[in-house]
Amino acid sequence: MAKFMDVHSGFVGVTARQLEEAHGRDLAIESEEGVHFERAWLDPTSGKVFCLATGPSREAVMRIHERAGHPTDEVYALTVEV
Amino acid sequence: MAKFMDVHSGFVGVTARQLEEAHGRDLAIESEEGVHFERAWLDPTSGKVFCLATGPSREAVMRIHERAGHPTDEVYALTVEV
Repeated sequence: MAKFMDVHSGFVGVTARQLEEAHGRDLAIESEEGVHFERAWLDPTSGKVFCLATGPSREAVMRIHERAGHPTDEVYALTVEV
Repeated sequence: MAKFMDVHSGFVGVTARQLEEAHGRDLAIESEEGVHFERAWLDPTSGKVFCLATGPSREAVMRIHERAGHPTDEVYALTVEV
């Protein structure tokens, strides 16, 4: 199982409740691709969201986010962690 | 204490040992600014590094990274976490 960080842009002014709702849409279907989203962080000023996930591939992570309504091309395979 | 994610680019081909060394330079001086770098993740293919930190301000995080030799302007204040 690999680890991934994905980055979303454009979430300016999004609230905690809205992020929870968006994240919940990922969690509801993630197992269909063998993905698990561990954590998501938001900077509502810049609109950046960072999601830390585990899964079989970059493409699997991208498919879940796309189906959940917040696609991103920025998914990085984190092969080193300190 | 606030939470921050910073993003570094250009770490293509960097090894675990090199990341550990770079991260160690942050850890050695972080307390001087009241910052703590909790975790760093690297994608050596794209060269992206993500650091999760706590600290008093975005500027404090930037000062430590700059003094440690790997400055970045991309420091995001993570006010929402799910």
